[in-house]
Amino acid sequence: MKPPDLHLSGQCQVANDVISLVGDKWSVLVVSTLGNGTLRFSEIKRAVEGISQKMLTTTLRGLERDGYVTRTVYPTVPPRVDYELTELGFELLEPVSALGNWAIANHARVLAARRAYDDRAG
Amino acid sequence: MKPPDLHLSGQCQVANDVISLVGDKWSVLVVSTLGNGTLRFSEIKRAVEGISQKMLTTTLRGLERDGYVTRTVYPTVPPRVDYELTELGFELLEPVSALGNWAIANHARVLAARRAYDDRAG
Repeated sequence: MKPPDLHLSGQCQVANDVISLVGDKWSVLVVSTLGNGTLRFSEIKRAVEGISQKMLTTTLRGLERDGYVTRTVYPTVPPRVDYELTELGFELLEPVSALGNWAIANHARVLAARRAYDDRAG
Repeated sequence: MKPPDLHLSGQCQVANDVISLVGDKWSVLVVSTLGNGTLRFSEIKRAVEGISQKMLTTTLRGLERDGYVTRTVYPTVPPRVDYELTELGFELLEPVSALGNWAIANHARVLAARRAYDDRAG
């Protein structure tokens, strides 16, 4: 597959947006988590280990703004807030999942490469 | 496609490695750039806009350590140093390219979502 020309001038805005998406580990984790279905804020927080309340709020707002996630507020006491992937979000999930699954499938090869490198360096 | 269970306990090491790869924009850009063929340090630096000498050195070392890139030194004066993707690196390029190409192809949808969100917020 042809690599994307992320560094072509004139595509800078696109490149920045790609990078801010790919480069934001919390967005990737939240999108992956929501791939399993609609979740409340507290459920996402539990599923995404290590994310702070504030970071999750920021991440969800960014994903909502970019059209990947919808936020639904139910007028209960306390209000219940559900998050789910949009159609765009589900489409994004596919390449994100492919990358995640590739990394999981090839993890042993990376670890072996690291051991060999460290042995040479040692 | 089933999303990867990045947050399952017991897979923490894998998840961390996935995240450090996906979450490192410079690694993604350097791997994409090397998808076009063998390049010298200075050529990569020119292609990857905004990367510093030090960051590129660190990024290439990490990619070499993880088995994605090989480094070949030619005993010229000054020494010539070539970098190229390994087989593992080319395999990684595929899901990385898919994600990058997806983001480029869907950029207009993201921009439209942002405009709509900002109009609602305004």
